[in-house]
Amino acid sequence: MRGTLLYGPRDVRVEERPDPKIVEPTDAILRISTTCVCGSDLWPYRGIEPITGPTPMGHEYVGIVEEVGSSVKTIKPGQFVIGSFFASDNTCPICQAGYQSRCIHSQLIGALGAQAQWLRVPLADGTLVATPDIPSDDLIPSLLAASDVLGTGWFGAVAANVGPGKTAVVIGDGAVGLLAVLASKQLGAERIVAISRHAKRQQLAREFGATDIVTERGEAGVEKIKELTDGLGAHSVIEAVGTQESMLQAIRSTRPGGYVGYVGVSHDVKLDGQELFFSEVHLHGGPAPVRRFLPDLIDRIWKGQIHPGKVFDLELPLEQVAEGYRAMDERRAIKALLRP
Amino acid sequence: MRGTLLYGPRDVRVEERPDPKIVEPTDAILRISTTCVCGSDLWPYRGIEPITGPTPMGHEYVGIVEEVGSSVKTIKPGQFVIGSFFASDNTCPICQAGYQSRCIHSQLIGALGAQAQWLRVPLADGTLVATPDIPSDDLIPSLLAASDVLGTGWFGAVAANVGPGKTAVVIGDGAVGLLAVLASKQLGAERIVAISRHAKRQQLAREFGATDIVTERGEAGVEKIKELTDGLGAHSVIEAVGTQESMLQAIRSTRPGGYVGYVGVSHDVKLDGQELFFSEVHLHGGPAPVRRFLPDLIDRIWKGQIHPGKVFDLELPLEQVAEGYRAMDERRAIKALLRP
Repeated sequence: MRGTLLYGPRDVRVEERPDPKIVEPTDAILRISTTCVCGSDLWPYRGIEPITGPTPMGHEYVGIVEEVGSSVKTIKPGQFVIGSFFASDNTCPICQAGYQSRCIHSQLIGALGAQAQWLRVPLADGTLVATPDIPSDDLIPSLLAASDVLGTGWFGAVAANVGPGKTAVVIGDGAVGLLAVLASKQLGAERIVAISRHAKRQQLAREFGATDIVTERGEAGVEKIKELTDGLGAHSVIEAVGTQESMLQAIRSTRPGGYVGYVGVSHDVKLDGQELFFSEVHLHGGPAPVRRFLPDLIDRIWKGQIHPGKVFDLELPLEQVAEGYRAMDERRAIKALLRP
Repeated sequence: MRGTLLYGPRDVRVEERPDPKIVEPTDAILRISTTCVCGSDLWPYRGIEPITGPTPMGHEYVGIVEEVGSSVKTIKPGQFVIGSFFASDNTCPICQAGYQSRCIHSQLIGALGAQAQWLRVPLADGTLVATPDIPSDDLIPSLLAASDVLGTGWFGAVAANVGPGKTAVVIGDGAVGLLAVLASKQLGAERIVAISRHAKRQQLAREFGATDIVTERGEAGVEKIKELTDGLGAHSVIEAVGTQESMLQAIRSTRPGGYVGYVGVSHDVKLDGQELFFSEVHLHGGPAPVRRFLPDLIDRIWKGQIHPGKVFDLELPLEQVAEGYRAMDERRAIKALLRP
């Protein structure tokens, strides 16, 4: 099959790779319908996360089940399914508490490489969620978004305790940040502030429900949020970048007793215990347990209540994956959808 | 009046100080019935928190209202009252959300010095809670404990989401940690693990509801908690020390999706963002909003449901305050009660 490998900084290629086969009886093999490039793929692409050799890429996927292992019970060949970036059994105590991203049997889909024609998905019954029927083409980008960026933005909003009457601030205008705006709107936030300096992203933030746009960052961004909230800070702040600056901006924009939901993969962050102690915020985040939210998100997409697929502003054949990475790296595209 | 001043490391004295007077119309003047020495008083006593000159000490108090300012409405002379270490208006949006320790008008009681015969309490209507009647002597130590250490341990347990069916771990066997054990029991935890190497404190932890005692610290302590929880970690961990070691022990002892409530005043703590991200714990803490819990805590004490005053294992006249500090510094006493 054709699949994507990262060879080194800014060197990503589509090559012939071995067709995946059932390895464990709990596996399923998917024919990938669409896949995409994630903001987190840019960390190794930029050389910030080193790699040791050609590395399969991609962890977002929707597709048709082609084959299942002998102990797969609920997932059937022919179903259209969505999974997330962690395979999970969905039965262990951690999964049952809603943290499937930390399932005691979790496996990283990224290591298998979803930017490809085919994908082996471990723990298929726990990992995959089937749509009610084969979706029409117009729904597919939104369903693909549910595989990671929508579920991650949603988790950020849930971790930030977004709800009716609340002011939510979203730091980061990538796909995850923009979909955290959408999630905040769906969860009933009264006021949603998007931090963005990028006209196209500001526009999409407004479409998704942002009531205010703030362009200031760092301490100036904090001051602006204080101004908008009677000097108190926001009830809920979603951090969707992962840097020291954005994390401090998030904590300092939150009122005492408020909530920071952080979903940007943490890179250079060191938090001072004393500042955190006296900030008196709730802090929660990490790799999003997207699986927890998938049934609900699929339902909202299926009913046409939400259109998260709008984050895909570039569509390419899989063979042009390198252009997808380049366009996102240069911030020409918010998110690139790939058709194998 | 007689009041306590810290002159420098391990130099604490009782001296003549000016009698407090009503300064703001929202003030009350209390005749202190009992006060005590706090674990957090030991930071400046040991010279770890520097002071710039003779500093009034003490922030825990119960007493009789002697006089109130002209705009005090609910607190009356003659009432027996309890307040906490922050004065708060109890009406601002932050107070109303339950974070009176971060009231927009908060003032530190410690700066006024409660280890004294008299105390001026700002924002009396918001800060003070009256008992149903003048308490009998045997209730007074427990009511005094509610002023800080009980409320702080309780906040730690609430922040750690302790509840029925949960395993709670308490790191720190000072008065706050021991009362976090009591709080965890009251909040319905199924299993309560106290970390302690000190026979007398272990004994009190068991009296307060600990089901297990662990003596290991650091990584060995983490391993022990994993052993007790099927390798998963605890649902709820209360950190009541404030050092890097105890904070990391708390985070690493918590299962993904679990909760760390931290109430030890953070001193040398630096948290690595990536470890925190992948730990996937909820983190919440800070200066306890004791005022939120006072009515409930007073009620439980009044009804004889809880006996938090057991943490006082040394009683001294105020004039011997220096011995109270020494005994706690040397861990000969858990907590010293002072009678002016």
